[in-house]
Amino acid sequence: MKTLKESKVAIVGLGLMGGSLAGALRGKCRAVVGIARRKETVEQAISDGLIDLGTTDMEPAVGSADIVVLATPVRAIIELVNDLGPLLQDDALLIDLGSTKSDITHAMADLPPHVQPLGAHPMCGKELSGISAADPGLYEGRTFILVPLPRTSLQAIDAGRDLARAIGALPLILDDPHRHDFLVATLSHLPYLLACSLVAAADATTSQDEAAWEIVAGGYRDTSRVAASDVDMMVDIIMTNRQEILEALAEYSSHLDQLTQLIRTADERGLRMKLSYAREKRMEMFP
Amino acid sequence: MKTLKESKVAIVGLGLMGGSLAGALRGKCRAVVGIARRKETVEQAISDGLIDLGTTDMEPAVGSADIVVLATPVRAIIELVNDLGPLLQDDALLIDLGSTKSDITHAMADLPPHVQPLGAHPMCGKELSGISAADPGLYEGRTFILVPLPRTSLQAIDAGRDLARAIGALPLILDDPHRHDFLVATLSHLPYLLACSLVAAADATTSQDEAAWEIVAGGYRDTSRVAASDVDMMVDIIMTNRQEILEALAEYSSHLDQLTQLIRTADERGLRMKLSYAREKRMEMFP
Repeated sequence: MKTLKESKVAIVGLGLMGGSLAGALRGKCRAVVGIARRKETVEQAISDGLIDLGTTDMEPAVGSADIVVLATPVRAIIELVNDLGPLLQDDALLIDLGSTKSDITHAMADLPPHVQPLGAHPMCGKELSGISAADPGLYEGRTFILVPLPRTSLQAIDAGRDLARAIGALPLILDDPHRHDFLVATLSHLPYLLACSLVAAADATTSQDEAAWEIVAGGYRDTSRVAASDVDMMVDIIMTNRQEILEALAEYSSHLDQLTQLIRTADERGLRMKLSYAREKRMEMFP
Repeated sequence: MKTLKESKVAIVGLGLMGGSLAGALRGKCRAVVGIARRKETVEQAISDGLIDLGTTDMEPAVGSADIVVLATPVRAIIELVNDLGPLLQDDALLIDLGSTKSDITHAMADLPPHVQPLGAHPMCGKELSGISAADPGLYEGRTFILVPLPRTSLQAIDAGRDLARAIGALPLILDDPHRHDFLVATLSHLPYLLACSLVAAADATTSQDEAAWEIVAGGYRDTSRVAASDVDMMVDIIMTNRQEILEALAEYSSHLDQLTQLIRTADERGLRMKLSYAREKRMEMFP
C-alpha cells in the first residue's frame, strides 16, 4: 500500500465533510480529486482551492485512485459501496465518513477481496452544510473514529491513521460498529432530536410574541443549535440507526418524565437531588 | 430620584449576577456596596475590585442606599422583599434580578408606598456560579428585561433603564410578569430540564464505556451545557414557575413523541417534514 504522500485521493461528495477533508489533504498527497454530482460544486471546490482536480464523472476518477473517501449521506454511501467495488484498483483503500457504521460496514463486508474497506466517523461538524461551509481546519484536534472490518489489513488501518493525523485529527480505533452506533445514538442523535423538539415547542407557543426573540438567552441558543443540521444527512443517520435511537429516546424520556413528575408534585427534595446529580455528572464529563 | 451617578447602590447577594453587576457599576455611581452572608465572599469582592464597600450586615447598608438590587435566588428575593421595605429610604428604588417575575412582583406590590419597586431579569448567565465567576462584562450587549408594577413611577422605570444602559445592557420593558414567565418557561427553563435529562440518559447508558468521552462531539456538549447551572438558583426558578414549565414540558413532549413515533414506524416522509420544519425555524430564529 502506498504512503499518503504518494497516493491519489478521490473524495466522493463535496459537502461540508468532503470539501473540508479535500482542503485539509491538499498538498499532503499526490493529488486530491473531488467528485460531485453538480458541476457548480466542482467548480466552486476548484475556485476555493480545495481540490487539485474535479469531475462529475465518478467511474474514471475512483478507478485511478489509491484512496477513495465516500463523504455523502449514509444511504448514498451504502449504494456506492455496493456499486464501486469492481471499479477500484487493486489494494485500493475505501474509507467512508458516515455517521452510523453498522449498515455501512455490513455492506463493506461484501466488497471484492482486492479492496481494503475501512469505516470512519470524524467527530466534528457544523450546523452549516455544503461546499460553502467547507473549512480545512474542521478536523483539527477532533477524534476521528476508525472502524476496521475483520478483513481489513493492518496496513490499511495504518493508512487510515495516517490520513487522520495528516488533517490534524486524533485517530481512535473502535472495532465494533454496533458499539459505535449505540454510543452515537445517545451522544449525537439524541441531542439532535431534543433540539428539533425544543424548536418545535418554541415555535408553537412563544414565537408569535415579538418579545420572545429579544429575551432568548444562551441556554436556548446552545440547546437548539443542532436543530439546524442538514436534514438529508440526519434522515439517513436516523433511518440506519433506528433501534439504538429508540432505546436512547426511551432512556431519556424516563428521566424527563421523572423530572416532570417531581415538578408536578412540587417534590422539592427529589427535584434537587436529580438536578444536583445531573450537574455533577455534566461537570465530570467536561471538567 | 437621584441620577445613577449620584446614587449609592447596595447589591444583596454577591454571586455570579450580583458580583458581575457590582463590578460593572463601579465608578458609574457614588458607591457600590456589596452585601453577602459570608465574610469570605465580601473579602473576595473587595480584593477582586468589584465593590467599593462590603458588609455582612444588611440593615444599615440597604437603609442608606438610593438603589437596592436583590441578586439572590428567587425565593430569597421574595423573603427580602417582604422584610426590607420598612428599612429603605424614602423613594429608594428596589430592583431584583430574579429569573421568574410573577411571585416576586406579587410580593413587591405589598411594599410600603415610599419604596419604588421594579422587577428585572437580565438575559445572561454562565454555567459557573459564585463570586469567582463574576465578570463585569457579563451584561454587555444582553437584553435586560424590566418589569414595572402598576405603582412604579416613570422616574423609577427611567432609573432602571439608566442602570441597564450603564452596564452595557439593552433595557426591554415587559409590563406583564405572567407573559415574562410564560416565555422564559419555554426559552430558558425547558432547555435546562432537557439538558439535565440528556446528561442523566448519557450517564445511565454510555458513560461506562471509556470510548464515550473521546467521541463526544459538539452536539452533546452544547445541548447539555446548561445542566451545569447552579442548582439552588434553578430549584427556586422551577418552584416559582411550575405551571408554565409544566405547560412547556407538555408541548415539548408532544413533539418528541411525534418524532419517536415517526422513527418507530420508519415514516421517512413524515420524519423529513418535521425535521425540515425545525431546521427552517431554527434558522429563522438565529439567521
